[in-house]
Amino acid sequence: MPRSALTPADQLPTLALHPDRALPADPGVRSIARELLATTQDLPLVSMHGHVDADLLLDDEPFTDPASLLVTPDHYLLRLLVSQGVDLDSLGVPRNDDEAVETDPREIWRTVASHWHVLRGTPTRFWLEHELVDLFGITLRPSAHTADVTFDQMVAALATPELRPRALFERFGLEILATTDDATATLDSHARLADAGLSGRVIPTFRPDALLHPLTPGWGERVERLGELTGTTISTSTTFVEALARRRAEFVARGALATDHGLATPWAEQLPDDAADRLMAAALRSAAGGPALGSAGARALAGHLLFEMARLSCDDGLVMQLHPGVLRDYDARVAALRGPDVGYDIPVVTEFVHGLRPILEAFGHHPRFRLVVFTVDEDTYSRELAPLAGVYPALRLGAPWWFLDTPDAMRRFREAVTDTAGFYNTTGFVDDTRAFCSIPARHDLARRIDAGFLARLVAEHRLDLDEAHETAVDLAYRLPLSSYARPS
Amino acid sequence: MPRSALTPADQLPTLALHPDRALPADPGVRSIARELLATTQDLPLVSMHGHVDADLLLDDEPFTDPASLLVTPDHYLLRLLVSQGVDLDSLGVPRNDDEAVETDPREIWRTVASHWHVLRGTPTRFWLEHELVDLFGITLRPSAHTADVTFDQMVAALATPELRPRALFERFGLEILATTDDATATLDSHARLADAGLSGRVIPTFRPDALLHPLTPGWGERVERLGELTGTTISTSTTFVEALARRRAEFVARGALATDHGLATPWAEQLPDDAADRLMAAALRSAAGGPALGSAGARALAGHLLFEMARLSCDDGLVMQLHPGVLRDYDARVAALRGPDVGYDIPVVTEFVHGLRPILEAFGHHPRFRLVVFTVDEDTYSRELAPLAGVYPALRLGAPWWFLDTPDAMRRFREAVTDTAGFYNTTGFVDDTRAFCSIPARHDLARRIDAGFLARLVAEHRLDLDEAHETAVDLAYRLPLSSYARPS
Amino acid sequence: MPRSALTPADQLPTLALHPDRALPADPGVRSIARELLATTQDLPLVSMHGHVDADLLLDDEPFTDPASLLVTPDHYLLRLLVSQGVDLDSLGVPRNDDEAVETDPREIWRTVASHWHVLRGTPTRFWLEHELVDLFGITLRPSAHTADVTFDQMVAALATPELRPRALFERFGLEILATTDDATATLDSHARLADAGLSGRVIPTFRPDALLHPLTPGWGERVERLGELTGTTISTSTTFVEALARRRAEFVARGALATDHGLATPWAEQLPDDAADRLMAAALRSAAGGPALGSAGARALAGHLLFEMARLSCDDGLVMQLHPGVLRDYDARVAALRGPDVGYDIPVVTEFVHGLRPILEAFGHHPRFRLVVFTVDEDTYSRELAPLAGVYPALRLGAPWWFLDTPDAMRRFREAVTDTAGFYNTTGFVDDTRAFCSIPARHDLARRIDAGFLARLVAEHRLDLDEAHETAVDLAYRLPLSSYARPS
Repeated sequence: MPRSALTPADQLPTLALHPDRALPADPGVRSIARELLATTQDLPLVSMHGHVDADLLLDDEPFTDPASLLVTPDHYLLRLLVSQGVDLDSLGVPRNDDEAVETDPREIWRTVASHWHVLRGTPTRFWLEHELVDLFGITLRPSAHTADVTFDQMVAALATPELRPRALFERFGLEILATTDDATATLDSHARLADAGLSGRVIPTFRPDALLHPLTPGWGERVERLGELTGTTISTSTTFVEALARRRAEFVARGALATDHGLATPWAEQLPDDAADRLMAAALRSAAGGPALGSAGARALAGHLLFEMARLSCDDGLVMQLHPGVLRDYDARVAALRGPDVGYDIPVVTEFVHGLRPILEAFGHHPRFRLVVFTVDEDTYSRELAPLAGVYPALRLGAPWWFLDTPDAMRRFREAVTDTAGFYNTTGFVDDTRAFCSIPARHDLARRIDAGFLARLVAEHRLDLDEAHETAVDLAYRLPLSSYARPS
Repeated sequence: MPRSALTPADQLPTLALHPDRALPADPGVRSIARELLATTQDLPLVSMHGHVDADLLLDDEPFTDPASLLVTPDHYLLRLLVSQGVDLDSLGVPRNDDEAVETDPREIWRTVASHWHVLRGTPTRFWLEHELVDLFGITLRPSAHTADVTFDQMVAALATPELRPRALFERFGLEILATTDDATATLDSHARLADAGLSGRVIPTFRPDALLHPLTPGWGERVERLGELTGTTISTSTTFVEALARRRAEFVARGALATDHGLATPWAEQLPDDAADRLMAAALRSAAGGPALGSAGARALAGHLLFEMARLSCDDGLVMQLHPGVLRDYDARVAALRGPDVGYDIPVVTEFVHGLRPILEAFGHHPRFRLVVFTVDEDTYSRELAPLAGVYPALRLGAPWWFLDTPDAMRRFREAVTDTAGFYNTTGFVDDTRAFCSIPARHDLARRIDAGFLARLVAEHRLDLDEAHETAVDLAYRLPLSSYARPS
Repeated sequence: MPRSALTPADQLPTLALHPDRALPADPGVRSIARELLATTQDLPLVSMHGHVDADLLLDDEPFTDPASLLVTPDHYLLRLLVSQGVDLDSLGVPRNDDEAVETDPREIWRTVASHWHVLRGTPTRFWLEHELVDLFGITLRPSAHTADVTFDQMVAALATPELRPRALFERFGLEILATTDDATATLDSHARLADAGLSGRVIPTFRPDALLHPLTPGWGERVERLGELTGTTISTSTTFVEALARRRAEFVARGALATDHGLATPWAEQLPDDAADRLMAAALRSAAGGPALGSAGARALAGHLLFEMARLSCDDGLVMQLHPGVLRDYDARVAALRGPDVGYDIPVVTEFVHGLRPILEAFGHHPRFRLVVFTVDEDTYSRELAPLAGVYPALRLGAPWWFLDTPDAMRRFREAVTDTAGFYNTTGFVDDTRAFCSIPARHDLARRIDAGFLARLVAEHRLDLDEAHETAVDLAYRLPLSSYARPS
């Protein structure tokens, strides 16, 4: 397909951020949306969930090059390029074998720029444009023609102190940045960052996924490591949960506000203590080379441990986050060659009503329990999630996540959820990225979509303007804070 | 969250019903929608399904207070308040134990008013505003500041004859009001209401749920009661169905036009007569303390009885309504403390294609059979329900129900269903409420949404204006009447 | 319902195609959409999938009458009329018994015209209006009043040479027309059509459904016929696949670009060769009256054969199309009386993630493999299909199909898919009809909806206008061509 038919090289298309981008097209609605956006646009960023490495801010080294900053860590972008036949090798994604991959950032950027049309209509494009303009002052649309000039401009900008991680942290207005940390992480970086003089907080999040399912490879070693870290002899479910509670306490001491659980299926089950203890003992024997634990036993133990995590949350006040329903490493060949998290994670049908029932019945009214649920299965919004969140005080719906963290899907979320759950059973915007520089763009997009949704309600006389202003601020700032506030 | 930041007490926000509320924002579309709404706004109300108590109209006592009128019977409102941590005790919902609950209507209204922001963007808010303005002349937005003054105003209004039940019945313009009645109900109130001189009809609806599933607690006693009421010795499926047919005939004699079936799963199965008879006998023995009926047998018998209900509809012409796919009393603790219907009903995935096949194959073309299906699983609209309703003459799709009886969900219903089923395989608007005073608001909202949808089709030149006018009247008035008309 | 209340006979409503039909209502968006539509409106038609009979063009006989042209082959129209109680007999649909059906085209058209209101808001109406105006110059809206005059006008038009099949082929601007052909079809008509001097190509499509599931009635005979046609002794899976490969080569020689698979479930499985061979031998014995093949074995063999079809596609470059998720001949009584394809096909829940995994893992990155997936289960768009197409280079999403080939469903498709998969992992528009004369109307509607969607992105500053122009042309013309191009 001749991509340049309408774009001769002597008249290169420009790049700019329109002040009305992603606002509704209708002039009346847009005018209200603009007004609402003006209220939220300069609010601090509350980033309650993400995958930025705390060391990035601790070390505060300059970013080395545009490719490792913008391309390699952005799996949204990588997937779209792969889908059009671009090989991951040519994008510099490492392999487990001895074959070489592209290492020249300029070549990688040329590949991206020459495939810019693939991104049309996607949030990836929206976020990247935001970064290109806002951080690097790029004024030309990326293309094969402009790859080199835009690359040079980015390289020059990256050499300036303004683009070092801590400077960006301040510039972004981050009030809180939550990282996601393995349950056995030392949290040293967080400890040292606390004294680094950042104007906002960087806090850890307790993610025990690798410990909570006994059939995960390496599970036995991880349990052993947890025992060492906490000075616990783990031989039963009871002692295991005690060790987890100790680890959680250390996260709390480092400022953590939440746990996070990535699961195939959101499914909990309360076993009697002795049954759980026996299952855990069997799982440990299985991990040590003894008789294999069957899948039914593994599932029951995992369900019980998830239930116990909810119980611990009532004790220590850590907000429980669920990110379920994704089949990880879908393509075994890609996962084998490139390692985990590259192998094409794909959503599957997710069921919440039966799976969460034990937790909601036991703790759904507990004054110290807060459960935040995310989904990539939007079919559950009006049928399951809004009715549950619209009745259980402990439950809040997280922002549209991953494949749904997009302009139209965010709008659909509000349309499907608000009728039954209102605004105040949602958490407001929660981003989720390992691409540090994209955080402001993601908040900006969410604020625009929420402004547009609220503006439509105002224009349709379903909400008064003063209420819309207040709600816009709540969604952008106050609800993320209050949804993740630990009870006193 | 400081709710009053933008609303100082000396400048209280007002409350009014904007004439364009819930109409589309686009000025061109809105102008057409206004015109269509003008055609339907004053049509009589046809209320073919609901849970108003016939005694309310028979007794015609003044409503005692605003809380028992507007709060306690509105489970939409109760759920939203609970979801934000308000206790059902403080809303006056009775308990099964000896603990006290709030009994002061003023205190209950204060709680509601001070949580008004929770309702933003919900249909509950839309309906309540309609009632507050239209029935009580309230002109201030409910809030902690205005709770007392609005309460006093409502109390004063309730003392007037204009707000007594029969006066409201006339004022609402109710042409028909269908109640929902247990299959063993006496219908005495309906008999007496027929002579009460109301300008519209109040008719019963035959709801045999408690009789149709043999594992329902108390099933045996109910079957016995049915036998007594109809003078039938019930020992087999055949005699059971005969007794049901006799009861249905009594409902028909009292003006009933329909049956109603609330089921977990819309699943029918035609068993051979002798197999059904044996199952029924086994179920009766089980209910009498004999060997327990297994769940497979119970399911088969329930499937067969649903099929038989369809067959009886071909005989007596009662329209068969299905309201499936809701898990009742989800929270066992709440249900135990407060009784049924308070325990947080939650929708689940619903499958219609296989489940309704026996009924549709047998009776889907029967000239005297009419099946009206409702759902709270909107994922089935374009995949299952519209294709089925778009081919079977007996099948019509009921209006969006419960969690989907909302502005945006009603719009999505039309968008998902009309392409394949058109307008004339839907029933038009059917409300479903135990909150008598909210009936006009619900019809008003539906007429607005349908006007907006039709107006968009006209603006997009997909429908002519004269056709839109006719269709608007059909959806608001003629289709509910004709969909529920018993064949002559 | 008095249909004529607003349409007195002396002032008959007119029929015309508004130039802005199906474009967005917002004036600003519409103005951009108009501009985009102007770019695509006169592009040639690329019709990569359909069910037109090649003999229609080979014989080039005049169409006999309006009913057999517009009514009998249009199952969308038939279904909607049946759903409102019109009997298929009165529409001239043949029966398997000796009973007569209506044979007078005028009577059939009268029935259609008098039910015109049933079609309000449906794409069937949109397409028919397009044909009535564009082919026949009708200027009155069909109704009981206008049935005869419009019928006469159509009869007169059909007598002209301009309305003969080949003349229409040229007039429609068909660059390619793909038919769908049984795997054992001779393709003689295609061979002769190649010399017929049409300005566009008519190509076959290889559809082996009846061969790929061993429990299909008549399967054994079909396998035997395949063996004869290809000179193969089919006794194992290996020899069966060899025969299929030979047949595919003959389709390729006749210009075929694709295969097509209509399946209940999109489910593939790679068996070891010897296991597959044994299953195939067992299936052949079963078909010959030997021990019955179980359903598990049949499913495994069908899954394996689907996998093998993908493998063959890598060899011969035929694009693999899947049309899954429809329960064929839902109503056994109707199917028995009228034959297949009349019995009310109904969509069911469809799962792609697990079912396609073997094919995607094996061939998803193969440079010569192209898989095009269609669905009638739109719940899978954002959850399954867009994430899969947004990463696998071999996979493209076909256009919204059947019950989703409608104005609002096409818009929902773009809204749900573009965020994650962009535009360039979709095929652009692919029609699917046996109603030859409706092809231009279908492309016209799709171009309008895509213009409207792109225009909204432009109006919301999410896409530049020059890009929208290019994308509009891609979706209407270049992507169907390139998606179905056989690799060189």
